Amino acid sequence: MGIFENWLLTIADYTGVAVFAATGVLASARRQMDWVGAIVLAIVTSIGGGTLRDLLTGQLPVFWIRQPLYLWVAVGTALVMLPILHRIRFPERVLVFPDAVGLALFTWLGCEKVALLGFSGIIVALFGVVTGTAGGLIRDVLSAQIPNIMRKGELYAAASIPGAVLYVVLHAFKIQPLWVIPAVCMATVLLLRLAAIRWRWMVPVMVQDSIDAGNDR
Amino acid sequence: MGIFENWLLTIADYTGVAVFAATGVLASARRQMDWVGAIVLAIVTSIGGGTLRDLLTGQLPVFWIRQPLYLWVAVGTALVMLPILHRIRFPERVLVFPDAVGLALFTWLGCEKVALLGFSGIIVALFGVVTGTAGGLIRDVLSAQIPNIMRKGELYAAASIPGAVLYVVLHAFKIQPLWVIPAVCMATVLLLRLAAIRWRWMVPVMVQDSIDAGNDR
Amino acid sequence: MGIFENWLLTIADYTGVAVFAATGVLASARRQMDWVGAIVLAIVTSIGGGTLRDLLTGQLPVFWIRQPLYLWVAVGTALVMLPILHRIRFPERVLVFPDAVGLALFTWLGCEKVALLGFSGIIVALFGVVTGTAGGLIRDVLSAQIPNIMRKGELYAAASIPGAVLYVVLHAFKIQPLWVIPAVCMATVLLLRLAAIRWRWMVPVMVQDSIDAGNDR
Repeated sequence: MGIFENWLLTIADYTGVAVFAATGVLASARRQMDWVGAIVLAIVTSIGGGTLRDLLTGQLPVFWIRQPLYLWVAVGTALVMLPILHRIRFPERVLVFPDAVGLALFTWLGCEKVALLGFSGIIVALFGVVTGTAGGLIRDVLSAQIPNIMRKGELYAAASIPGAVLYVVLHAFKIQPLWVIPAVCMATVLLLRLAAIRWRWMVPVMVQDSIDAGNDR
Repeated sequence: MGIFENWLLTIADYTGVAVFAATGVLASARRQMDWVGAIVLAIVTSIGGGTLRDLLTGQLPVFWIRQPLYLWVAVGTALVMLPILHRIRFPERVLVFPDAVGLALFTWLGCEKVALLGFSGIIVALFGVVTGTAGGLIRDVLSAQIPNIMRKGELYAAASIPGAVLYVVLHAFKIQPLWVIPAVCMATVLLLRLAAIRWRWMVPVMVQDSIDAGNDR
Repeated sequence: MGIFENWLLTIADYTGVAVFAATGVLASARRQMDWVGAIVLAIVTSIGGGTLRDLLTGQLPVFWIRQPLYLWVAVGTALVMLPILHRIRFPERVLVFPDAVGLALFTWLGCEKVALLGFSGIIVALFGVVTGTAGGLIRDVLSAQIPNIMRKGELYAAASIPGAVLYVVLHAFKIQPLWVIPAVCMATVLLLRLAAIRWRWMVPVMVQDSIDAGNDR
C-alpha cells in the first residue's frame, strides 16, 4: 500500500483504540467502579484483543510495549472522559456505531497481522475474531459477569466470524487489487453488526434450562 | 515408544480434547449461553490448560497454532453437539467417566511435555496439574463463577496432584520400561477421581466463615 | 549494589511473596473455598503480578519457572497457614501493614526489572503497578468478584502509581547514589497506602448510576 493508505490505516487503528477505550469507561460507570477501574477497563477493552493475539502467537513483547502510543491513547481517552462523565450523562447508544466500526477494523487488522506470520486459515480467521472481540470479553471478566459475546444478544462475534472467514478465502485466491480484501472483510462485519442491531438478529440460545445440574466439571 | 504407541497416544490426545470440549458445551447450556458462548467454552475447556502451560513455559506459538487440528476437533465437537442438544436432553453424568480419563491423560501429557524441556520437579508436577485442570478453571471464570476445582467437591485437582508427583518421582529414578511411568501416573489420577466420585471424597474446606470481612486486599 | 544489599533485596522479595500468599489464603477462607482453592489463591496472589509482567514483556519462561523457590514459598505459606486457620480465627487486619510493604516492594521491583529491559517510561511505570497489583486482581477474578483495585476503597493501585512514576522520573535524571530511587519509590507507595487506610482516602467513583443500560458492548 502507498503512503496515503498507510496514514489512513494508522489513524483508523488509533481511532479504534480510542472508541473501544470509551466503551470501557462507560462500562465501568455502569458497574460503580472508581477511576482506577475506569482506566483499567479502558486499557483492557481497547488493547486486550491484540494483546491476547500477540501472546498466543508469540509476538513478544506485545504490540503496545513496542509502540506505547496505543497505551497513551487508551489512558488519555479515559482521562478526558472521566471528568466529563462526572457532570454529563452520556447515552451509551452514541457509541454503537463507532463500536461497530472498531469491531470491523480490528477483525481485519487481526487477520492481516496473523496472515503475515504465515499461519493456516483457521488460525488467521480465529485471531481476526479474537482481535475484534477479546478486549470486550476481558472487560466483562473483570466486571465479574458472563461475557456479552457469549450470551443472548445481537450478533457480535457472529458478525466478526464471516468477515474473518471471507478474509481467509479471498486471501487464498490472492484477489487483486490489494484494497479489495480489507474492504470486503470490514464491510461484511460492519453491515452484519448494524443489521443485527437494527433488526435484532440473535444467535440461537441453548435450551437445556432444565438440564441435569449434577457434577459441574 | 514405537509407532503403535504413538498412534494410540495421538488418538487418546484428540479424544481428550473432544471430551473436554463436550463438557464445555454442556456447561454453556446450563448457563444460558448462545452458540457463540458454547463454542468459546468448548475451545477454552479443551485447550485452555495446554495453552496456559505453553504460555508460561515460553513454548510459543502455543500448540494448537502449530497443529490446528486440535482447534478443529474442539470446534467440530461443539458444532456436532449443538443441534443435537437443541432436541435431546443430555444427562451430564454421561461425561463423568470420559472426563476422568481426560483428566488422567492430560495430567500425564502435561508432565511429559514439560519434563522434555528440562525443568525441575515442582515445575513438571505443577504443569501436569495445570494441563489437566486449567481448561475447566478458565471455563468457570468465563462463566462468572468461582472455579469448581477451588470449591467444595469430589477430588479433582487433588486427584491430579498425586499422579503428577508420582510421575516426577518415578522419572527421577529412571524407571523402566517406558510405559510404566505413564501407566502409574494415569492410573493414579483416574482411580482417585473415580473413587472420589463413588465415595464422595472431598478436600477439606476452610472454616473461617465468620472471618473479619474487613479490608479485602 | 553490594553483596549485602543483594541479600537484603532477596530476603525482602521472598518475604513479599509469603505475605501476598498469606493474603490469598485468607481471601479463600472468606469465600468458602477448599484447600486446593486456598493454594491456588496463594500462588496467583503472590506471583500473578510478576507472571503477567514476564508474559507481556516476553521474559519467558516466567521468573518462578526459572527460580522455583518462589513457588515453594507460596505453596509452603499456604500449607503452614491452612492447619492453623482450621483452629484459630485470624483477623485480616494483621496483614494490612505487611501487605502495604509488599505493594511498595513489588512496585519497585517491577519497575526495576522492566527498566533493565530498556523499555520507555510509561511501560516501566505501568509494569511497576502491574507487578504490585495484578496478583490481587487475578485473585479476585478467580473469586468471581469485581477486582478490589477497581472498586471504591482506600487507594491501592492509586498508591502504587505515584511511586512508579517517581521511579521513572528519578531514573531519567540518573539520580545518585543508587539507593535513593528504590527508597523514594517504596516510601511513596508505602506512606500513601498507609495514610489512605488511616484517613480513608478514596479514589473518586463514577456517578452514572442511572446511565442508560442499553447495549452493553
